Amino acid sequence: MSETELSTHIEGLLHAMPPVAALQPRLAELADGGCRLQAPLAANINDKGCAFGGSLVSLMTLAGWGLVAAWLERRGIKAEVYVADSQVKYRAPLYDDLDACAQFTDSFVADVVLQELVDKRRASFQVRAEVRRSDGGLATRMESRYVAVVPDQIAAE
Amino acid sequence: MSETELSTHIEGLLHAMPPVAALQPRLAELADGGCRLQAPLAANINDKGCAFGGSLVSLMTLAGWGLVAAWLERRGIKAEVYVADSQVKYRAPLYDDLDACAQFTDSFVADVVLQELVDKRRASFQVRAEVRRSDGGLATRMESRYVAVVPDQIAAE
Repeated sequence: MSETELSTHIEGLLHAMPPVAALQPRLAELADGGCRLQAPLAANINDKGCAFGGSLVSLMTLAGWGLVAAWLERRGIKAEVYVADSQVKYRAPLYDDLDACAQFTDSFVADVVLQELVDKRRASFQVRAEVRRSDGGLATRMESRYVAVVPDQIAAE
Repeated sequence: MSETELSTHIEGLLHAMPPVAALQPRLAELADGGCRLQAPLAANINDKGCAFGGSLVSLMTLAGWGLVAAWLERRGIKAEVYVADSQVKYRAPLYDDLDACAQFTDSFVADVVLQELVDKRRASFQVRAEVRRSDGGLATRMESRYVAVVPDQIAAE
């Protein structure tokens, strides 16, 4: 799968989920070290005229999911990716369009993860996601753990 | 404001937010000690056929927000309520309609919070929210801190 096909694949998965389509997300960047999703404020606004916290978490969660899913896809690993836990800090209200970037944390070591997938058919990924305001200030930060599971029927193919 | 008017008010605020209306939430219960929001799985489904994590967080965040907002409203306190931080644990996939219950944690002492609002015009509320499966098992748990701020113009009225 080429990088363009991979982006189209990930974006297609996003828009196929009704609650995600409602956020109107756009895959702005998809690289081996980062995934960036954008969404218009108008579709994600709360009663105070700024971004709804649930939309911020959704977009950051999806950016992390896209990061992990694409990383596995590039290595030919067919696995289901789930978010397992998250710590969210809402630091400042966001009055701009939403722009969420997800990256692996420093504790991520590719070789360790690949070995875990071979040995146990599952592995954890630590991801940090952020939404920044147009002035560069931090709006929201999230640290999450994702789990990739290689299903038995896939492993047995 | 009667309890019925309060429920109508809270539900009206929910449906006025586009990203929240997309979840199709229904205010199932609103009491001084708990707030319960339900939403259909179909509107909140992911690519794996279970509830999307972002929808779970959104519904739990809103249940906690409704709990705090109604608690303040009942005491005649006009304040803006924000979520400040959350820890989310996704324990099991949910294949049922979403049902989120939010309650104050044991550390919540009403008199302390009321005094903080008088002294500092702001106070924190610790809230625990859960989504359980139809068999009673835990799907997702979230512990959050909300902050209520009494705006100057309101305080000065």
